[in-house]
Amino acid sequence: MSTKPRKNADNESLPTIGGYLIRRLQDYGLKHIFGIPGDFVLQFYNLLEESPIEVIGATREDCAGFAADAYARVNGLGAVCVTYCVGGLSTCNSVAGAYAEKSPLIVISGAPGMEERVSDPLLHHRVKDFNTQHEVFDKITIASATLEDPLTAFREIDRCLAAAVRYKRPVYLELPRDRVQTQALFPHEPQEDKLSSHKQALTEALAEAERMINGCKRPVIIAGVEMHRFGLQQEVVKLAEKNKIPMCATLLGKSVVSETHPLYLGIYEGAMGRDGVRKFVEDSDCVILLGTFMTDINLGIYTAHIDPGQCIYITSEGLRIRHHHYRDVQLKDFVKGLVKTDLKPPKREIPDSVRPVAKKFELQPENKVTQQRLFARINELLDDNMVVVADIGDSLFGASDLTIYRRSEFLSPAYYTSMGFAVPAALGVQCANRKLRPLVIVGDGAFQMTCLELSTTLKHGFNPIVLVLNNKGYGTERFLHEGPFNDIPNWAYHRMPDLLGGGWGFEVHTEGDLDKALHAALANKDAFSLLNIHLEKTDVSPALTRLAERLSKRI
Amino acid sequence: MSTKPRKNADNESLPTIGGYLIRRLQDYGLKHIFGIPGDFVLQFYNLLEESPIEVIGATREDCAGFAADAYARVNGLGAVCVTYCVGGLSTCNSVAGAYAEKSPLIVISGAPGMEERVSDPLLHHRVKDFNTQHEVFDKITIASATLEDPLTAFREIDRCLAAAVRYKRPVYLELPRDRVQTQALFPHEPQEDKLSSHKQALTEALAEAERMINGCKRPVIIAGVEMHRFGLQQEVVKLAEKNKIPMCATLLGKSVVSETHPLYLGIYEGAMGRDGVRKFVEDSDCVILLGTFMTDINLGIYTAHIDPGQCIYITSEGLRIRHHHYRDVQLKDFVKGLVKTDLKPPKREIPDSVRPVAKKFELQPENKVTQQRLFARINELLDDNMVVVADIGDSLFGASDLTIYRRSEFLSPAYYTSMGFAVPAALGVQCANRKLRPLVIVGDGAFQMTCLELSTTLKHGFNPIVLVLNNKGYGTERFLHEGPFNDIPNWAYHRMPDLLGGGWGFEVHTEGDLDKALHAALANKDAFSLLNIHLEKTDVSPALTRLAERLSKRI
Repeated sequence: MSTKPRKNADNESLPTIGGYLIRRLQDYGLKHIFGIPGDFVLQFYNLLEESPIEVIGATREDCAGFAADAYARVNGLGAVCVTYCVGGLSTCNSVAGAYAEKSPLIVISGAPGMEERVSDPLLHHRVKDFNTQHEVFDKITIASATLEDPLTAFREIDRCLAAAVRYKRPVYLELPRDRVQTQALFPHEPQEDKLSSHKQALTEALAEAERMINGCKRPVIIAGVEMHRFGLQQEVVKLAEKNKIPMCATLLGKSVVSETHPLYLGIYEGAMGRDGVRKFVEDSDCVILLGTFMTDINLGIYTAHIDPGQCIYITSEGLRIRHHHYRDVQLKDFVKGLVKTDLKPPKREIPDSVRPVAKKFELQPENKVTQQRLFARINELLDDNMVVVADIGDSLFGASDLTIYRRSEFLSPAYYTSMGFAVPAALGVQCANRKLRPLVIVGDGAFQMTCLELSTTLKHGFNPIVLVLNNKGYGTERFLHEGPFNDIPNWAYHRMPDLLGGGWGFEVHTEGDLDKALHAALANKDAFSLLNIHLEKTDVSPALTRLAERLSKRI
Repeated sequence: MSTKPRKNADNESLPTIGGYLIRRLQDYGLKHIFGIPGDFVLQFYNLLEESPIEVIGATREDCAGFAADAYARVNGLGAVCVTYCVGGLSTCNSVAGAYAEKSPLIVISGAPGMEERVSDPLLHHRVKDFNTQHEVFDKITIASATLEDPLTAFREIDRCLAAAVRYKRPVYLELPRDRVQTQALFPHEPQEDKLSSHKQALTEALAEAERMINGCKRPVIIAGVEMHRFGLQQEVVKLAEKNKIPMCATLLGKSVVSETHPLYLGIYEGAMGRDGVRKFVEDSDCVILLGTFMTDINLGIYTAHIDPGQCIYITSEGLRIRHHHYRDVQLKDFVKGLVKTDLKPPKREIPDSVRPVAKKFELQPENKVTQQRLFARINELLDDNMVVVADIGDSLFGASDLTIYRRSEFLSPAYYTSMGFAVPAALGVQCANRKLRPLVIVGDGAFQMTCLELSTTLKHGFNPIVLVLNNKGYGTERFLHEGPFNDIPNWAYHRMPDLLGGGWGFEVHTEGDLDKALHAALANKDAFSLLNIHLEKTDVSPALTRLAERLSKRI
């Protein structure tokens, strides 16, 4: 098998660059890779075919990028493999999204051979010069390398993969086609990344946090997306349970902790979220922020009011307690340290008003479907084996009120907010865990961008349930600035199975239609089900109304 | 109207940055702009709506980029307008293609307001910092600017637009949303770009060219794509006619001169092209290369054999005669100068064998369609009002043998070779010239990438005829490296009208089916017609066989 080291002249076994890369990806738990072949990457594709890693062909490279990003969020590492420039540059937006939202995505791109470049020829797919693509990716990744020299390539592979895992950000590896089979010049042992906190700084920080928590009257935990990315969800729950501290999540971190937990309050997002949660958090005199990004949407477009002077704020990028900063304190060490600390915070009761009891959904079969009723109905349908994948706009805002039972069952580009993420992300989710059934919530505008990736779910026998919120336009933007540019053509989305040759389509106008279609979709386990849900142009979720009002003030 | 200069306090009329940009785009002849709105660009969209420029909404930003590129190739300038990062970074591949193939494409991106950036917040769509997108585009454009300061913004607009027209390359303009309505601080007059040759250098170069042409025995002209980009097609024809010099074109420059001209030989592309043309060119002792890129595919993957010691080689980037170079000699000045020069080259006869007479196509209705027969049939159908838009792979190679009657009637990404160009390009072509009817030739793999843009052609009442060469996979790559990754799902492409709610679909197996479908397509002038043409996996054009053989030797 090509990924095995070959023997060199001295009978010593030395790995090839391509083979070593595949081996290291496997070391990190990668079982699937997404992409589209092209002539500059065909040699590496051939190696992949011979390896245990399964190649998942997508219809477009940007979709492969979204799928790999979602795969990384579920699996811990994801990868996309494409050809030079026409392939790589098509993934820029997906990779930038993974950067913004901390997803460890490996981008592998083929490239012209080093031997071919000698006279600087105009090879196809070339833009300015042979470094253009690398230079572009340097701007949107945390580490990058061109694997052109067997002396350095093996260490570069180690360095970049370690950076992806350490920072939970994308990295870029460019592999010239005549270097795929190039052997190492010397034996090479994988380099491990060793990261540790400064011991005294950690001790001092934990002692200060202890004093602050023990001395406060109304503590609260806000859990962010990094708790999931760094595998610390259980630690958050332990910290809350051991000390009876109520906890909430941010929108990007939704479902980081089980939303049915008795200590769970809901999503905190300033004025965008439920008022009970907002008051409970903003009334706190000790806010413990764990792996939370302070982004505009997480903060309800800056309607959040949290006093930094009463915060303990740890992320993978730094620790701030009140107004001072600690360096060299690792997220994992601090969170685990806090769990072990013998804290004695005051017990804080959660008023019933913070967590409204969901009313039983009573079907009104003749009524037209509205966003509010739709999400209420979906909430009844969610079970332990479903994962909600929400695109942006009202798909996200409406979905923020759904109750997610398991941890990490909610995926959405809630910070970068790139349209078109959801359908390819569902593909990535089901590759990472076949047992999870994605419930995809997506607006018609976003659906038009990447819907054809449903074809790939058919190929692999996956069965996402896709709800297309069809209001014939870019709904969120209509609130910001109405104009004819916000209207889009109305497709017969439920006819996609006719084009793709598989799947189930339903057209939904009333709650009765919705109910029947959802029952059928749950029963159809062999392929995707797609619901074309007609909504009034003016019908939006209460969260979007609030958000749009805030956003329009800034325009 | 917002694009008009407003009066300032001193009653002096000063333009706004957004208004001035729109005015300058109109000065350059822009009538349409392609894109998708988003909150950071909505203010500028509003200005566009109030202006005479028509906004063409696409389904995806990369498609908007391809459409704008094609529009630029036909109209002389094109523009795409998108929102920050999620929009802009989605166009990277289209913009890179325009760079590689010299298309003057203006990229306008909205951005967060300068006032919003003060405390460096995590605004949605942000990647690393607020400069990330500008830095990325700096790598794939010829000029770029962020219009953040009213002191410099107006000159920056002039500089970038002039660079696009001068170099026929894309440029990037980023417009923070709180600068759209910002007025100039002082009166501003549009800056014009003045480019001229060094007088003595031009005289010397023309004199040398004259001696070389007059002293040779077997002259030939190779016309490249820059003759079209710089509007010099008529000059090439004059040069050939006045001096009776035979001429050919490159693949990227196909249709730069009318292919029915008595002095026209065909496409020169080394061993990939017809052998008669190859011999005629390579036998020449004076090759006049006008605006030709020496790319790998233009050169038949380096199977071309032209001796630089017998060449006069002018492009917009430089002039080389034999082995020495002239600086500061402009393409236009040199070509026009050569036309005016009183040349006396020997007359060179064109053997009949160079230009084979097309056999009358005899329909064999029961036979399955093959590539060779398909292109022979299409050749009979082309008329003066059609424009061939070829995607890559056999769509391009097969199309290279079509006879294009008018100038510039052939569009293809023949150098950058990005899949998915053709369908959105057809949209751009018909926006630029409604009377041109695009004949789109596209493989199934490329079609899957951007086919949904047919929806936009429906919206505008355009009527491209789309031939999907359906061989259930990436045909060109099968030749290079066969593997399961080259197979793609077989869609019922002819059912697209059911999804999109308009257009005409046909399924084609035999020549009889093909004939009927083409007749119907020509008659259906109200919307697109789509032919799903089933081909054998192994059926390819002779050109692809030759190319694939050459390419596979390099892998």
